Amino acid sequence: MAKSTGRFFGGIEGGGTKFICAVGSSPDDLRAEARFATAGPERTIQETIAFFQEQIGQIGPLAGMGLACFGPIDLNPESPTYGFITSTPKPGWANVDILGGISRGLGMPVAFDTDVNGAALGEWRWGAGQGVNSLIYLTVGTGIGGGALVEGRPVHGLVHPEMGHMLIPHDRDVDPFPGVCPFHADCLEGLATGLAMEKRWGKRAEELPLEHPAWELEAEYLAAGLVNLIMAYSPERIILGGGVMQQVQLFPLIREKVVSKLAGYVDSPAIRKEIDQYIVPAGLGKLAGVLGAIALADTR
Amino acid sequence: MAKSTGRFFGGIEGGGTKFICAVGSSPDDLRAEARFATAGPERTIQETIAFFQEQIGQIGPLAGMGLACFGPIDLNPESPTYGFITSTPKPGWANVDILGGISRGLGMPVAFDTDVNGAALGEWRWGAGQGVNSLIYLTVGTGIGGGALVEGRPVHGLVHPEMGHMLIPHDRDVDPFPGVCPFHADCLEGLATGLAMEKRWGKRAEELPLEHPAWELEAEYLAAGLVNLIMAYSPERIILGGGVMQQVQLFPLIREKVVSKLAGYVDSPAIRKEIDQYIVPAGLGKLAGVLGAIALADTR
Repeated sequence: MAKSTGRFFGGIEGGGTKFICAVGSSPDDLRAEARFATAGPERTIQETIAFFQEQIGQIGPLAGMGLACFGPIDLNPESPTYGFITSTPKPGWANVDILGGISRGLGMPVAFDTDVNGAALGEWRWGAGQGVNSLIYLTVGTGIGGGALVEGRPVHGLVHPEMGHMLIPHDRDVDPFPGVCPFHADCLEGLATGLAMEKRWGKRAEELPLEHPAWELEAEYLAAGLVNLIMAYSPERIILGGGVMQQVQLFPLIREKVVSKLAGYVDSPAIRKEIDQYIVPAGLGKLAGVLGAIALADTR
Repeated sequence: MAKSTGRFFGGIEGGGTKFICAVGSSPDDLRAEARFATAGPERTIQETIAFFQEQIGQIGPLAGMGLACFGPIDLNPESPTYGFITSTPKPGWANVDILGGISRGLGMPVAFDTDVNGAALGEWRWGAGQGVNSLIYLTVGTGIGGGALVEGRPVHGLVHPEMGHMLIPHDRDVDPFPGVCPFHADCLEGLATGLAMEKRWGKRAEELPLEHPAWELEAEYLAAGLVNLIMAYSPERIILGGGVMQQVQLFPLIREKVVSKLAGYVDSPAIRKEIDQYIVPAGLGKLAGVLGAIALADTR
């Protein structure tokens, strides 16, 4: 256990497959952590509350609490369903008031955002996003999701960004695979998620050898997605996380293809000369989400 | 001349083909306006300064000045080339210190942003963007450009958004036209700009009859671009302006295709039920840019 700053926050990364809860104030100062598989909402909310109640019993009241949650979620504080998970296909979890359940259970307000906005915030504060004002965090795993910070603040809007579902060029002569997205078939997520790799090649991504053409194609799609995010936001940095991005051979391929697709149009030294520092791996690893939740708690 | 509020701003829309200068405080209160063709930078800057000096001579000092400028431009106040037009192919205009030239000539600070961010700001304050916190303004004309407001502020970043150059699906069996973008061939701008329509069909857009298949295809590409902007930003409203969007038959086609491409994934009444109020024509017409420049002057 690292030294205490005397001011602790609670952070919850609410994921579709697991929940991570932690108490602390920074990556160097995490007092406690718990992980459990995401069960039904009632049990999961109960486990979350129990963990923090125990912590509070030991160290006293927390200075704040944040929840970075899988979605889609309702982020509009004026909406009657603020804090709900809305239309998820995950059984039992549609229209669940997760924020209200946790907040009422703990008797304290809880800051709330998407898992990817949380990770973006965590990376910005303590990880690979330090020193810039705007960034994109994109996670490539079972799904593809993205969060954006503009002037250091997570971007919301009508709902929240769903960057995995951008439409990108798909040359069926090169790649006849139809895509796996149940909504859009061959959107970015449909073509480039870990699941798409597995279905296209008949093997899990981590089992494909380095020289397999899968990586070139994967980099092609991810680079198209990043070009679109660069054109949409002009972010100062792009951070890539998630299971598929553990295959670090992807980074040089993606960078090269982004530069090639931009074709000199975005005239910045960050792209011309420093692309290695522009498109970077996540720095906080599996703790990005829960640290992001702590950062959320600490910025409200 | 409308009644005076006693507090006037100067606004400049610096366009690649023409400059529009105005003095006033709102669309209902424009005291003076001038338009002139964009010549070389020296002469154009001189004409701009002369107009405002004359105005200042008549009404006294202005409360502020804003310039919404064609690009790419350098928006980073810490950069040695802040306020420059950077890598434009427009002859004579690359590496021109337009902001410095105007600001020094008038002896006053000038707020500075892209023409499309300016238009987004003008529409937000007085036009079709009133009442929301985040919006996209996309202009479809000779080129395609976009500006974004998040929480009422224009989005910058590494450089500034270049939404026209997003990469979108292009089915060459349906449309073998290769695209006109000199950088990316068949990016959104390459496929859907007015110039692309003219080259593809051999006629200027405004000469193509309503029943011509050009409109369906144009709506297809613009809808793909808007889907990507919705996925990237989740804006609360999308405003479409520019010469091509004067063809109002495009609006219902675009709306229908956006809803169809989203395929129910973004679960919001704005898209399910109120798409007519979600994707809307610009409200300020040809004054959006110069009013945006006045809004820029009035928010610093």
